[in-house]
Amino acid sequence: MIRLPDWLARRAALHPERPALIAPGGRWSFAELHVWASRIATGLGAGGLRPGDRVAILAHNHPAYAAAIHAAPRCGAVLVPLNTRLAPAELAWQLADSGATMLLHDDAHAQVATGLGAIPCLSLTSVAAQRPAASEPGAAASLALDAPHTIIYTSGTTGRPKGALLTAGNHWWSATASALNLGLHTDDRWLAVLPLFHVGGLAIVLRGAIYGMPVVLHERFDPAAALAAIDDEGVTIASVVTVMLQRMLELRGDRPLPPHFRCALLGGGPAPRPLLETCAARGVPVVQTYGMTETASQAATLAPADALRKLGSAGQPLLPLELRIVTADRDAAPGEVGEICVRGPMVTPGYHNNPVASAAALVDGWFHTGDLGYLDAEGFLYVVERRSDLIISGGENIYPAEVEAVLLAHPAVSEVGVVGVPDARWGQVPVAAVVVAAGHAPDGALAAEVLAFCRARLAAYKCPRSVHFCAALPRTASGKLRRAALRAQLISSDE
Amino acid sequence: MIRLPDWLARRAALHPERPALIAPGGRWSFAELHVWASRIATGLGAGGLRPGDRVAILAHNHPAYAAAIHAAPRCGAVLVPLNTRLAPAELAWQLADSGATMLLHDDAHAQVATGLGAIPCLSLTSVAAQRPAASEPGAAASLALDAPHTIIYTSGTTGRPKGALLTAGNHWWSATASALNLGLHTDDRWLAVLPLFHVGGLAIVLRGAIYGMPVVLHERFDPAAALAAIDDEGVTIASVVTVMLQRMLELRGDRPLPPHFRCALLGGGPAPRPLLETCAARGVPVVQTYGMTETASQAATLAPADALRKLGSAGQPLLPLELRIVTADRDAAPGEVGEICVRGPMVTPGYHNNPVASAAALVDGWFHTGDLGYLDAEGFLYVVERRSDLIISGGENIYPAEVEAVLLAHPAVSEVGVVGVPDARWGQVPVAAVVVAAGHAPDGALAAEVLAFCRARLAAYKCPRSVHFCAALPRTASGKLRRAALRAQLISSDE
Repeated sequence: MIRLPDWLARRAALHPERPALIAPGGRWSFAELHVWASRIATGLGAGGLRPGDRVAILAHNHPAYAAAIHAAPRCGAVLVPLNTRLAPAELAWQLADSGATMLLHDDAHAQVATGLGAIPCLSLTSVAAQRPAASEPGAAASLALDAPHTIIYTSGTTGRPKGALLTAGNHWWSATASALNLGLHTDDRWLAVLPLFHVGGLAIVLRGAIYGMPVVLHERFDPAAALAAIDDEGVTIASVVTVMLQRMLELRGDRPLPPHFRCALLGGGPAPRPLLETCAARGVPVVQTYGMTETASQAATLAPADALRKLGSAGQPLLPLELRIVTADRDAAPGEVGEICVRGPMVTPGYHNNPVASAAALVDGWFHTGDLGYLDAEGFLYVVERRSDLIISGGENIYPAEVEAVLLAHPAVSEVGVVGVPDARWGQVPVAAVVVAAGHAPDGALAAEVLAFCRARLAAYKCPRSVHFCAALPRTASGKLRRAALRAQLISSDE
Repeated sequence: MIRLPDWLARRAALHPERPALIAPGGRWSFAELHVWASRIATGLGAGGLRPGDRVAILAHNHPAYAAAIHAAPRCGAVLVPLNTRLAPAELAWQLADSGATMLLHDDAHAQVATGLGAIPCLSLTSVAAQRPAASEPGAAASLALDAPHTIIYTSGTTGRPKGALLTAGNHWWSATASALNLGLHTDDRWLAVLPLFHVGGLAIVLRGAIYGMPVVLHERFDPAAALAAIDDEGVTIASVVTVMLQRMLELRGDRPLPPHFRCALLGGGPAPRPLLETCAARGVPVVQTYGMTETASQAATLAPADALRKLGSAGQPLLPLELRIVTADRDAAPGEVGEICVRGPMVTPGYHNNPVASAAALVDGWFHTGDLGYLDAEGFLYVVERRSDLIISGGENIYPAEVEAVLLAHPAVSEVGVVGVPDARWGQVPVAAVVVAAGHAPDGALAAEVLAFCRARLAAYKCPRSVHFCAALPRTASGKLRRAALRAQLISSDE
């Protein structure tokens, strides 16, 4: 079993004065962040957190959130970052499923947190209140690479989110794999505008400590602020989703980005050609990436040089990751579609409290992503279909089954199908087709009522944009919903 | 157990045309090097090499040597690189101790290799003869990180070398730890002038494949060629020992090195102040490093910014490595001298075929280096004394016990002490003090005879520069040789 020194503690020892965190509210050196994390760890311990416990966190991006990410492992606790956009019922379910014994929250989420009721709440603002002094000693533990580090919920096809467990080693390997792919420059600064409750944002904070690299942290994505960080704060790499990059380019116009900006790491599905062409024309270096919570972020990337030559490809797997395309009974031939399976040290050991889902997803160390794709003759990956019927809206994953489960709980809904339809701004948005139950009128009032019903139970981004009533849903002979047919039907009815 | 894809095979897939190896004799792309390694692996298999076997190699630096380093693990075999400067008796002993079943050699060592007799010899030149085509398919295996990869002999205080076992994981962690410290730039090219039979040279070849970085490989160190590689081949990093850096700076004079050259990684003991001052004045970025075979190369490094401020320090440990200073019964306080102990994933699991030495060196995962040192208040390591009485001559380690054992075998030698004395070019050279046995005359003829006796049994660099006869050696009351006193005596008699 491999143990490493606490990453942040070592970085604080190696270069105490180097900036670790740059945010609109201030700057923290590695020494300061290290002490801050130790203080928060002390506060969590005083609040009753014990080794092995799970501590959930419900907060907007904030430097204290980043410090808390480093604090939890110092208590031997597992962090459960919660999506702030979830409805209270969804949050309560994840809290219960994770077995969290404490909920950290910022001021904005104090009321929601307290309203959830079940477990002790602790204000992140209070526990992280005092600004640390760099000279204060911070406790320096070591980390076992196979120790559970994070549980991040991902929605699934079954309608219930699954808590993907990530070990300290998963994060370490992900960070080093990314460095071996993108390089690691002395002047690197990584912009975090993705939420820290997503693996894409969280991984930036961990890379910061592992690399000894400043992280520029924004509370939310704002295209002008993101561009200012690149221009004025020396940001060299930014993790973005398509809609963010589009808005930055719109705002920027023809004025080139500074030469130190070396990588826009673009996740959340294949990028549209016009965007890639604009980037190529303006010299914006875009590295497309395919990844997921279960691989601790990036699994494959496409280099800028290949962006147009291999349009639509997710590129090649990172060096430490093995990737296969598997059909029902064998490895697929080049060009043949199958399920994308990955194996490697950044892959989750399984889902928390869910042996059935773990056993289904992990076979002989191979993680079955549920995504369909193929490899071309040069070994470039093409993702044909994200996890069966996944809808990706502005970088957020939406599983139709989860939305359908909520809709079916409404007494007027007899049958339902949710699909993603194209949207200029968000890529896709969910739309619902409903067959009403006997005794209910398929009118505008019912549509409004059904949508309000969803909004009370689901994160806003998961709620259908619209409800379409129909007499029957397209189904196969065996009664299975024909999603592609429904999708075509709803797209044409939208036009 | 973690398995990774074969590093070279993945790099060949990721960027087949990028140069992997640049040598005076030609250039090899990653695709070519990959195919070449597979061909050599096939040749080794045809020669009878089986998984688990040890294959020794006796050769000068050459591109085919680098290919063989990647070929051995593809056969599941463990490579045993032999020091070409060793005497035949020393080579024969290491071959026998390692249990090697095959000896690869270049043309220059054909006669020596065949003369050793014991095991089948295979010409590296023949097995690697054909220049590979990049389009040829090369077999791509995967590597288990805990699989034995290399056995490198290090001399010991007991008079017999010990075969330090390094796993694939030791090399991987060493390479990533180095990248997390020195950074990893897209244009990096690492100059290998150190012999590939030393861990310092071998590690460069492995970093090349792990990073996807071109390695510029020279058969031997030549200061003009090294400077030309920096000027004309875009070398950004060079691993050197003090004598090499001195000769390069002498030859270069005041003309600055090009700005792309970002790191002279300086091993083999603390650097003298005048050299560091010259480097500072001329803007040569020197990163001093303390490491050893058992840590798969670098363990600690001192950044250029600290070179003069922390003169004589070996710097701070690499991030994944824990380092302690241990006295007889506890951890030393800052400033207090003790034994340097390290623990981490790049540390050897033990010595081949030598459970006694392994158990003595490794306690609870902590490797006891035998070197004495202390940490200052800022955590910077100062090495006070290399492994008891180690002599470092031009970057090569010489253990007095090994030389003394040979001298004691001569019938005219009754007592002997070997110590290192300062040398302007090599740093130190070994010198012997001898008490002659009854009936022998301590004259020039005997001195010449004793030296010839050494030269027949030891590598030239280990042979004493001179033999001093004396009536008695300085000893403690318990009869233990007082090396420091002997050393002072021999230095003053030399003046």
